[in-house]
Amino acid sequence: MRRGSRRAPRITALGGGRGLSASLSALRRLTGELTAVVTVADDGGSSGRLRDELGVLPPGDLRKALAALCGDDEWGRTWSEVIQHRFQSDGDLHGHAVGNLLIVALWEKLGDPVLALEWVGRLLGAHGRVLPMSAVPLHIEASVRGLDPSLPEELSTVRGQAEVAVTPGTVEAIRLLPENPPAVPEAVTAVRAADWVVLGPGSWFTSVLPHLMVPQLRDALASTQARKVLALNLVAQPGETEGFSPQRHLEVFLEHARGVELDFVLADLDAVGAVADTEALRDAAKRLGAELVLAPVAAGDGARHDPELLAAAYDRIFRTHGRIAPWR
Amino acid sequence: MRRGSRRAPRITALGGGRGLSASLSALRRLTGELTAVVTVADDGGSSGRLRDELGVLPPGDLRKALAALCGDDEWGRTWSEVIQHRFQSDGDLHGHAVGNLLIVALWEKLGDPVLALEWVGRLLGAHGRVLPMSAVPLHIEASVRGLDPSLPEELSTVRGQAEVAVTPGTVEAIRLLPENPPAVPEAVTAVRAADWVVLGPGSWFTSVLPHLMVPQLRDALASTQARKVLALNLVAQPGETEGFSPQRHLEVFLEHARGVELDFVLADLDAVGAVADTEALRDAAKRLGAELVLAPVAAGDGARHDPELLAAAYDRIFRTHGRIAPWR
Repeated sequence: MRRGSRRAPRITALGGGRGLSASLSALRRLTGELTAVVTVADDGGSSGRLRDELGVLPPGDLRKALAALCGDDEWGRTWSEVIQHRFQSDGDLHGHAVGNLLIVALWEKLGDPVLALEWVGRLLGAHGRVLPMSAVPLHIEASVRGLDPSLPEELSTVRGQAEVAVTPGTVEAIRLLPENPPAVPEAVTAVRAADWVVLGPGSWFTSVLPHLMVPQLRDALASTQARKVLALNLVAQPGETEGFSPQRHLEVFLEHARGVELDFVLADLDAVGAVADTEALRDAAKRLGAELVLAPVAAGDGARHDPELLAAAYDRIFRTHGRIAPWR
Repeated sequence: MRRGSRRAPRITALGGGRGLSASLSALRRLTGELTAVVTVADDGGSSGRLRDELGVLPPGDLRKALAALCGDDEWGRTWSEVIQHRFQSDGDLHGHAVGNLLIVALWEKLGDPVLALEWVGRLLGAHGRVLPMSAVPLHIEASVRGLDPSLPEELSTVRGQAEVAVTPGTVEAIRLLPENPPAVPEAVTAVRAADWVVLGPGSWFTSVLPHLMVPQLRDALASTQARKVLALNLVAQPGETEGFSPQRHLEVFLEHARGVELDFVLADLDAVGAVADTEALRDAAKRLGAELVLAPVAAGDGARHDPELLAAAYDRIFRTHGRIAPWR
C-alpha cells in the first residue's frame, strides 16, 4: 500500500440519473481521473421519445452526468445550464432537454457514441469522462410481486425503466433486454484500470444494478484490482424500492451480484440509525465481502446527498484504505 | 483617403439565408472585423415551427450566418457541422436543425438575443459577430400581381416569407409586420461604425430588402460614413424574382430604398453579359448613386457565388475605393 502517493486516484463511478450526479459532484472534488459509466435503459420522458423517434441510445442520464462534471468557470456553468435546459410549450418540443438533442446530433454526425460524448465533455470543460455502459439501447424488465393488490403473491413482468420505477408492486429481480448486451470497451477498461470503483447511490433496480447484467462489466468488476465502494440510498424510493430497508437493498444487490464482491458499503449515519438494526446491516455488507462505513452524508433535508459530505466520506475511505490517496 | 492603412476594414454585411452565407464566406477572408445583420422574418421550416411553438425569433438565418463564420480548425468545423445537422425521422423532430434548437435554448436561458448569439459564436470560434436586425419576430407581406393567372393585372397580398418566396405571381413590393419594427441597437452601431456595408446577394424581397424597412437601420444606412456595395444575384429566383432582369432587381431596390444611396453595385460579368444591356444596368446603378463593377464572381455552375472570386472582387473594390484597405 502506497499511502500518500501523489498520483491522483483513478475513480470509475457506475450508475445513472440523479444518484450518479450526486456521486460525480462529490468525486470530482477528489480526483482529476474520473470516469462515469452510465446505464442506457431509460425509456421515459425526453430520452424515451428520442430513442423511439431516432433509434438512438437514451441520452438523458449521460447528459446529467456530463452536467455534473462541467467546468467551474462561467463557460462550463453556462453550457451546463444550456444542456440541462428543457423546452416548455404546448407543442412537440415540450419536455425535451437541449443537451439530449445535442448529444443525439453528435451521435448522428460522428457515428461513435463514445467520441460524441467526448465532444460534449470538451464543450463543458468537463472534469472527467462519461461513457455509456453499452452502445446498445437497452430495456429493463422486472419481476414484480403483487402488482395487482388482490393477488399479493403473484409474480408479474413489468417492462421498461419508467414503468419499473413507479410500479405499485414489489420488485424482486430485473433483467436487461436484450440479455447479455456487449459493454462499451472503454467502460470495461475504466473499471479494470481504476483504483476505486464507486457504485450507487441511485434508483436501485434501474440505475445501480443494470451494470451487473452486462457480462463484460460484471467480469471486470469481479476481477479488477480496484477497491469497490457501494453507497446506499438515504431513503427508499417510492415505487421501485418502496418499503425496502437498507439491508434489503444489500440483499437485492447480492442477489444480482453474480459473484461481484465489494470492499465497502457507505451508509448515512442518521438514515441508517433511524430505520435499521446496524448489526444486521453490517452482516448484510459482510455477505458482500464489504465493511460497513457509517458517515454523515445527507444534505439538510435528509433526502439528498450533500456533495461535500459525500466527498469527505469517500476521501476518508480512500485515504485510509486506498493504494492511492486522493488529492486535496 | 488613407490607402494602405494597416487597420483591417470594419465590414457589416446585411442579408439572410444562403446569400448572406456566401457573402460572409467571402468577407471573412478580408477582415477580422466582420458583423452580419440578419433578417428575422422567416416563417418556414424549422424556424417557422420554432417561432410558432415557442414565440421566439426565427433562428435559421442566424444559424447559417454563424456556421459561415466558424473557426478554421477541427473544433470550429465540427461544431459548425453539428449546428447545421438536421434530424431526419418520421416524428416530431424531423427537419429541425440542431443549431436552431441550441440558439433558442440560449435565448430562453440568457434572455438576451444578442448575448445568446455571442455564446454560439464563441462556441464556433466564429470569425465575426452575428446580430438579428430586430429583436421582434417579423412577418413579410408582399403585394403580388397576377397571383391568379386568369387575372394577370390584379394585385393581391401574400403573407409570410415562405409563401412570398414561392409565389407564382410577380412581387411588386414588400412590407414588414409589425411595420417599422425597432432595430437591435448593436446592428445600428455596426452600420454606423463600418468602413464598408455590404448588401446582397440573396432572396431579393425576403433577405435583401427587409433591412430597409427597419427605420433605424434605414437611417443608419442613409447617414453612415461607410461605403456601400450591393451584390446582385447571379440568376433570378424561381418564385419571388422569376423573370426579373438584373436591372429590375436594381429598380426594385430603388423603389424600397427610401433615400438610401449606394456606392457600388457588384455584378457577375457572365451573368450580366448573358442577359442584360450593360449600359441599362449601369444607368440603373447610377440612379442609386452607384458605380457598376463587373467581375467574375460565379462558381463553375453559374448559380452560386464562389467565395474566393467574390472575396477578390470585394478586395479590389475596397482597395481601390476604400478609406481602409483590407488585409492580405
